[in-house]
Amino acid sequence: MQKHKVALCQLAVTPDKDGNITRARARVEAAADAGAKLVVLPASRPLPLPEIWSCPYAMETLPSYAEDIDGGESPSISMLSELAAARKITIVGGSIPEKASGKVFNTCCVIGPDGQILAKHRKLHLFEIDIPGDIKLKESDTFTGGQETTIVDTDVGRIGIGICHDIRFPELAMLYRSKGAHLICYPSAFNMSTGELLWDLMQKSRAVDNQLFVATCSPARDPNANSGYMIWGHSSLIGPFGEVLAAAGHEEATVIGEIDLSTIQSTRENLPLEMQSRGDLYRLVDVLVNDSMKSRSETVSKKTRMCT
Amino acid sequence: MQKHKVALCQLAVTPDKDGNITRARARVEAAADAGAKLVVLPASRPLPLPEIWSCPYAMETLPSYAEDIDGGESPSISMLSELAAARKITIVGGSIPEKASGKVFNTCCVIGPDGQILAKHRKLHLFEIDIPGDIKLKESDTFTGGQETTIVDTDVGRIGIGICHDIRFPELAMLYRSKGAHLICYPSAFNMSTGELLWDLMQKSRAVDNQLFVATCSPARDPNANSGYMIWGHSSLIGPFGEVLAAAGHEEATVIGEIDLSTIQSTRENLPLEMQSRGDLYRLVDVLVNDSMKSRSETVSKKTRMCT
Repeated sequence: MQKHKVALCQLAVTPDKDGNITRARARVEAAADAGAKLVVLPASRPLPLPEIWSCPYAMETLPSYAEDIDGGESPSISMLSELAAARKITIVGGSIPEKASGKVFNTCCVIGPDGQILAKHRKLHLFEIDIPGDIKLKESDTFTGGQETTIVDTDVGRIGIGICHDIRFPELAMLYRSKGAHLICYPSAFNMSTGELLWDLMQKSRAVDNQLFVATCSPARDPNANSGYMIWGHSSLIGPFGEVLAAAGHEEATVIGEIDLSTIQSTRENLPLEMQSRGDLYRLVDVLVNDSMKSRSETVSKKTRMCT
Repeated sequence: MQKHKVALCQLAVTPDKDGNITRARARVEAAADAGAKLVVLPASRPLPLPEIWSCPYAMETLPSYAEDIDGGESPSISMLSELAAARKITIVGGSIPEKASGKVFNTCCVIGPDGQILAKHRKLHLFEIDIPGDIKLKESDTFTGGQETTIVDTDVGRIGIGICHDIRFPELAMLYRSKGAHLICYPSAFNMSTGELLWDLMQKSRAVDNQLFVATCSPARDPNANSGYMIWGHSSLIGPFGEVLAAAGHEEATVIGEIDLSTIQSTRENLPLEMQSRGDLYRLVDVLVNDSMKSRSETVSKKTRMCT
């Protein structure tokens, strides 16, 4: 199967966690009814006093709302698992605060059509911004960054995961491309300032630089939100040539687009960037893989030394 | 000095080489009159039968028009050198076909205010595209690719150079950023297909991903050109947050914008991408530097072996 319907659920999120979960469920059900095989949810909203898709997001109180995914105590993920299994779909479950080992992570679960968690991505690049008179935020005051990139085989193709600010780092998308990703999903929550300047730019450039599909999913904008962090919205599905396959405005909406994985191949044949790339001049290194190779070679050289 | 006026000369190019050089001279003079300290010219036009900024560009006859820059037999570069010295400005001299060692390169000279060539960039990524029914081109049939990246200190800051298709490769811009570039200049000549989809996207994403200035300079569009390669135009100067500082339409024009190098520092303080980057997970390697380091370490280990 090369063609798959992808739904982006741009949820309106309120401080009522149970209500959020109920509405998310209804949106995912409706997307499955419409034939979506992959459903993507938004990221958390990263500032004091707005909300995330499943719970309030006050930096001070947030850790107490965090869910223990590995311990099986996560109402948000339980709901998504149940739904994925019932509807035989894959879900990229936005992001929720996860507590583990006394830390809090900003975490996205990918759930397969059997309801099992296929992969868990912990946001790698914590957002930090300080524009005097506009916005100031230091996510690392609350969250700990993840330690691994996340790429996973699903029924709808090989998917790389990034959360929100992860999209600002081209290296992550380039690593996913080198590992054979068909699609990169970025549950996100850009604000009005960075949204207007960067949202469209980032998702399209990650797609065309790597000649693959990119899906972003944001919460809906709440024009009445009395916080400094107004959401940009505009969840989008982008093709390997930068073409817009589906896009929401800023209001609550589910948009559905079709990805045809065969267009990755044809785009790369039309414009063979990888072949034209100058590996003799530059190379992106996956440090963890490189380190493990280094360790192996160190082991080998130790053995060699012992033998001689 | 932190602030500099940059002029982009979006030249109309005809098959009359002498006429092109005369008009380019007038445009550069006018830019200097307007206070520009850096003047950027467009790239060659990469298809059979259109023209480049200084000479006709038929793939079959092009090698006979190529200029011997190192041998001092280059009327295009001589004119620019004379002009740079007379007006005490820096010129990024677009691209011209260069003959050297029996090969032809697509080459950009950077000329300093003393008229000397500060750097010579040979296009690294040769354009190759095959979209059935739209466009087909294989630049490597005529040109040889360069073997080095090019970054140079000038009176208006440290400048990295790329030519046209070089902009499609994020690694090149990332290397220039790591080497302290303030500005990347891309003399270019995108066509209507890739122009509409990619031109704006590429220049802005290279700027915001690396938090530096980007200048692109294209020839003007000739709506009456009877070839398959219609030029996109839209030469632009982009700031480190993706802001448009100057932009041409598609007609012949010189646009001038000011770059303030101090905004690089403030952008990076506001949004410290480099600090947030995960060097523990990925790393871009400059292969030539790495190879020379490897050679040194190999030399060391050979010596060590000889000593033991």
